Formats: sequence, structure tokens, C-alpha cells
Amino acid sequence: MRANPNFQKLPAGYLFPEIGRRVRAFAAAHPDAQVIRLGIGDVTEPLAPAIVAAMHAAVDEMAVRATFRGYGPEQGYDFLLDAIRAHDYRSRGVEIGADEIFVSDGSKCDSGNLQELFAADAVIAIADPVYPVYVDSNVMAGRTGAPGPDGRYPGLVYLPSTAATGFVPEPPKGGGIDVVYLCSPNNPTGAVMTRDHLTAWVAWARQHDALIVFDAAYEAYIQDPALPRSIYEIDGARECAIELRSYSKRAGFTGVRCAFMVVPKELRGVGAGGERVSLNAMWSRRHSTKFNGTSYVVQRGAAASYSAEGMAQTLGQVAFYMDNARLLREGLTAAGFTVFGGQHAPYIWLGTPGGAKSWDFFDELLTKAHLVGTPGSGFGPAGEGYFRLSAFNSRANVEEAVARIRRVFA
Amino acid sequence: MRANPNFQKLPAGYLFPEIGRRVRAFAAAHPDAQVIRLGIGDVTEPLAPAIVAAMHAAVDEMAVRATFRGYGPEQGYDFLLDAIRAHDYRSRGVEIGADEIFVSDGSKCDSGNLQELFAADAVIAIADPVYPVYVDSNVMAGRTGAPGPDGRYPGLVYLPSTAATGFVPEPPKGGGIDVVYLCSPNNPTGAVMTRDHLTAWVAWARQHDALIVFDAAYEAYIQDPALPRSIYEIDGARECAIELRSYSKRAGFTGVRCAFMVVPKELRGVGAGGERVSLNAMWSRRHSTKFNGTSYVVQRGAAASYSAEGMAQTLGQVAFYMDNARLLREGLTAAGFTVFGGQHAPYIWLGTPGGAKSWDFFDELLTKAHLVGTPGSGFGPAGEGYFRLSAFNSRANVEEAVARIRRVFA
Repeated sequence: MRANPNFQKLPAGYLFPEIGRRVRAFAAAHPDAQVIRLGIGDVTEPLAPAIVAAMHAAVDEMAVRATFRGYGPEQGYDFLLDAIRAHDYRSRGVEIGADEIFVSDGSKCDSGNLQELFAADAVIAIADPVYPVYVDSNVMAGRTGAPGPDGRYPGLVYLPSTAATGFVPEPPKGGGIDVVYLCSPNNPTGAVMTRDHLTAWVAWARQHDALIVFDAAYEAYIQDPALPRSIYEIDGARECAIELRSYSKRAGFTGVRCAFMVVPKELRGVGAGGERVSLNAMWSRRHSTKFNGTSYVVQRGAAASYSAEGMAQTLGQVAFYMDNARLLREGLTAAGFTVFGGQHAPYIWLGTPGGAKSWDFFDELLTKAHLVGTPGSGFGPAGEGYFRLSAFNSRANVEEAVARIRRVFA
Repeated sequence: MRANPNFQKLPAGYLFPEIGRRVRAFAAAHPDAQVIRLGIGDVTEPLAPAIVAAMHAAVDEMAVRATFRGYGPEQGYDFLLDAIRAHDYRSRGVEIGADEIFVSDGSKCDSGNLQELFAADAVIAIADPVYPVYVDSNVMAGRTGAPGPDGRYPGLVYLPSTAATGFVPEPPKGGGIDVVYLCSPNNPTGAVMTRDHLTAWVAWARQHDALIVFDAAYEAYIQDPALPRSIYEIDGARECAIELRSYSKRAGFTGVRCAFMVVPKELRGVGAGGERVSLNAMWSRRHSTKFNGTSYVVQRGAAASYSAEGMAQTLGQVAFYMDNARLLREGLTAAGFTVFGGQHAPYIWLGTPGGAKSWDFFDELLTKAHLVGTPGSGFGPAGEGYFRLSAFNSRANVEEAVARIRRVFA
């Protein structure tokens, strides 16, 4: 069997397994150390009571013949689509059709799968640093060469996101790009795009007939009501943007699994003969061919996050994590670090002391403070000299982490 | 944005939407008709009590900080992997490693996604008639031309499954095929492969360095304990076969969503330079890049299907559906139909009266008996003149369906 040769282009050592290896080695050598993990961005608060109640009720429905549900609509149940339309969009003045929303089992799946819409030789642009799935899924699909010594893949267009631009990528001068992935609030840098940023990107995409993949998985963490929460708050975005949303961080669903993707009817790609093709129709075909709907019980839980109770409870969780982020920001600043992010995102992005290599700082933080974070270089070459800390943890652990940082570095 | 041109090769009219259109039109014209649907293969019995209890318990765990679960292992939790190894494999004398099992949210997803392992120009063989996802997912990936007037895609190798071979495809004489998809018990024909069939296929695959994708989603419906339930009961299959299993029909999970795929460590593909590459390592990379684990609550439900109680309850459901299949077989036979399948599968495959076109018989059955089935031609050209009926329904509906068939056709 001739195998897909593109998988071989991916380096063998991945970021999070390497972190795990170093942490295990340290813990084995120092069995009494109380290691606090601020690395992977995984929620720690339990599910909101309104969501728990809705999931129990859904399980009970599945236990009785009269209310049992088998295959559901691949795109998602109307009760969830209606809640999304009202609370995520109409509340912001945006009208999204029920047949433009595709409920799934996660944004990681969506962001990995959506590249199936693109031609094999489509040119892809990503920010640097960047969430690795955008890159890896396009490498697997053969849209790049093998990586060079700097870790960059020939064929990809890298858009540096540095302190000079507030860690927000800027539109290129010209075109020649089919797709750009934008993530705001950003993982890993915690930066958020303003209305001006998004307006510039939409104008660029429309001018150059490019598609924007707008990953808004962290939208719930935006604190300033004036900041856009959806790219569709920008005029013209329906002609050029797909949007991804997730319940993982907004409602604590990392282990429950639910997300959705918006593909407006106006979105058009270019077919082999130069004709315009509907991306909504293509994604509908993809979704119904290779997916069989999100678990009914899970969809009921997601819908409950929009009830008055569910909204108050989940917003309370977001506020809790954002208080953690504030404590980390303040503690790091007091210890002399240069700190970015953490104001509209659950991630703190910090410059390493003296511009140390990201992995060297990882080792220093682990051995001196028994804290685990994520090296910025793991997200791309432009992340070198930076480091990500996650605000997802208990208050006690965050306070202890801050105390250790101040003790070691201040 | 240059779009994937291969989606345009898929015909606009799909099988099940066309069935839905004709049924809606009939129901609108005959509002008093009691239409019974034996078309789509969707379970109707509620979840087993042991599964319901396990899902409630899991939801309760998610409601408390101390037992809350965030991101789980992408491959699945050990409690489920261990149950699979013991009950699905060790009980049949087969040893499968925990790191050879990949839990997912459904076999439709797995069977659609696994073609990402194959080279872009891999030659794919499928049975005819066939479960459409095998075909459509390879068309979308560009491994075929546009379909000809007979509906066949240039580039695919079709293996006719006809009455002459008991609706089981036979290995080709030569090689030149990278991958063959086999489904047993078969959807749509209800045929089951014997040890001799599988032995011949494994020998062929090993001789020609081909991969077998063995879809055993209906394994629980095999009634004869002497028939193999896993392809790994055949010596040498670990070197040439991936196996798919699902909880959809075995435990009523069509709306709950859980399945798994087995990728043995011995499986090797051929890389771009002729080197051998591990398909297990490739799938592990794919699974952890584009998937984030199956819902914890769902995995707990799936594991409960293996408890003593859960096994008895789910086997009871399978027996119930198989009694439906027996009633359909007997009624159709008494009405003069030539009937296949339904003995080790929940599907009845019948020859249309006088070899009528499948869609003509669909219309006749709908208008005369108010029954909905699936035209055999919808599964491929060799399905013309045949028709599929599903045993998934209430006893009362099945008995009424049989009475109508005997009244109209006997």
C-alpha cells in the first residue's frame, strides 16, 4: 500500500509530548517537588449546574423509547442552532442562517478538517507563532515541502506576529494567497484583534479573493464590549470568512466535545474551470459524508450554556479564569517580566528574561520554581524568546505559582 | 480561493435525500397513509439501563471539581480500551494492544478519514454494491475521475458482489491495488464473510502488499459462533488489515456517537522513497492532530455495554432486531420474493419482482404498501434490481409491514 508521503515531513518530536517527557524526568528526580502545570490550556472548573441538569435530562430521554434519538441532523439540532443564532450572533447585530452553522465535536477537528475545501496547491498563510493544527493539517495534505533547518515549511506563507505589531499579523502587501488563518483572541499570544485589524483583513481578503479562517475559540474571554466578537461584525466578512467557535473554553467542554463552524452562503471558491463554487454546499457535503452529528446529550449540554442560568454560570467561570490571568500578569510584572496577553484571553505571553531561549527558560522555571509552561518556540520560530502561561487552574495553584515566580525572579 | 475541484465530481442528488423527497411528496398527496420506514438503518430501541446509569454517573463526575475531566487521551480512556481488548478480542483468542486501538466518535468518521493514510494516487478497490462513504471520501480526495454514465468513477476498481458469489466480493486475480474496503456483515446486502472468504482475502493482500479496510460495524449481528467476528481471527491479518467497529448498532449509539478503529503495529505502508512506514504511527499522528478524544460521558456509556448487565441488555436488543429480520425474511419469502441477508445482519436484500428497476420498485412499494425501503441501485450499479429493507423498527411496524407485503404481492 502506497502511503501518504506527507506525514513524513512532520517532525517526530511534538511540543506537548516533549514537555511531558521533561516534566516526568524532573518529577522522578525530585519526587517531593509540587509541580504546578500552567502548560496545556485545559479547563479545571466543573461543568455548570445548568449544563449538568440538561445532560442528565437528555440521558433520561435516551432511556425511553418514545423520546429516544438515533441519528440526528449532521449539521446539528435546531434547538442548538437557534440558540447560537440568537445569543452568539443576533445579540451582536449579526444574522446567521441555520443552514450556515455546522455543529461538530470540536474546533481542533474543524480546524484540521476544513482544509479539505482547498485545492491541493492552494497557498496557505499563517501567523508565526501559531496554533500548530493549522500548519500540521496542511502539511499532511501535501501543501508544503519538508521543513527547513529553521522549522519552516516551504510553500507556507509566514506572517510574523511580534511585539512590533502587538502580536497581531498584518495583511501582506500583495495577493497570491488562497487562505489565511487568523486566531483572535490568540492562542498562544493572548493578543486580540480590534475592529480596525479585522476591517483591514476583510478588505485585503476581498481585494485578493482570499479566504479568512477566523478561529474565535476564545471569544468568550474578550472583556471589552467594544471589541468585535465575530468577524461577521465587519461589513463584507460574509463574502470572505469562515468562523470557528468552541464550547471548550467558554463552557468547560474540553472533555465533553462540542464546537461549531459558520460557512456563509455568500462564500465562493474558484473551481477547476474557473467557475465559482459554494463553500457552504461543499462543507455541507463533507459534513454529511464524513461526519454523523454530535452526540445528542452533548448538544443538549451546549444549548443549556445559553439559558439565563447557564449563561450566568459559564460567564462566572470565564471571570474566574480571567482573575487568574490578572494575578499572573500582576505577579509577573512585579517580578520584572515583560508581559503580553491575558487581558482578553486566558493566556499570558511573556518575554523570557534577557531573551533566553524558550526551552532554556522552560527548564529554569521547572527546576527553580517547579512550574510548567509552554515554550514560545514550540508555536513557531517567531515565538523564540517567549513563553506561554495558561490561566486555567485553581486559584490556590495560581497564587502559589505567582509567589514562586516572585521569589525566584524578582 | 482555489477550491478542491474533486467535490464537483460527486453527483448533486444523494440517495437518502431523494428518498426523503419522494416520501414527503407521497405523504403530502396521501395525508391518511400510515407510512412505515424501513429505509435508513437507524436503531429504535432506547439505550440499555446499564449504559444510562453509566452516563448519568459520568455526568455527575463532570459536575464536581475533584472528578471533572478535561481533555482526555486522544486514543481513548484505558477503561474503554481494556474492555475492548478483553471482550471484543481476547474472548475470540485475539490479542490487540491498547496502543493499537483508536476510539472515535463514529465509524462513518473513521471510514471517511482513514483514506488520509493513502498516497494521492493509491488505487482503491470497493465492492459493488457498497456503503457510499468508502467511495465518496476517496472521490473528495482526488483518487478518481468524474463518474461515467453508469455512475462508476474511473480509477476505482469495482468488485461485483452478486448472487453468483453470495454477495461476497472475491479477490482479484492479480495485484496493482493499494487498498480494498470489505464490509462484513455487509451493508447493504446483509451477506457475511466466512473464515474461508477472509483467509483468501488475507492471503491475497499479503501477496500483493495491499491493505484491507475491514468494516465490522455489524459484527454483533453474527448469529453463528463459528463465523469469525474479527479479521484478526485469521492468521496474517495483523500484517495487512485495519478493522472498524462501532457501538451504533451493537449498543444503540447512533445518536450517542462512539466507535473505534484497530491499526496493528505490524501494518506497513510504502513511503515516497520506497521505505516502509508504520500506519499505526501515522494514524496516531493524524488522530492527535485532527481529533481531541471522544466525549468522556460517551466513553463511559460505551464501556458499560461490556459489563455483565450491559452485555445482556445490548445482546437482547440485537436479538430483538434479528427477530424483526426473521419476520421480514419469512414474510417476503411467503410473498414470493427472493431474499438474501437478514441471518447475520439487520438488513434484508431482496430481488425486485421480475427484476424491476430498484427505483420503480421503491415507488411501487411506497404507493401500494406505504412502505419505505432503499433502492439497491443507490449502493452501486450492481445493486440494480435489488432492494434493501432494514430490521430496525418496532415489532408492531415490522408485523404490519409484513402483512402489507403479503397482501400486495403474494
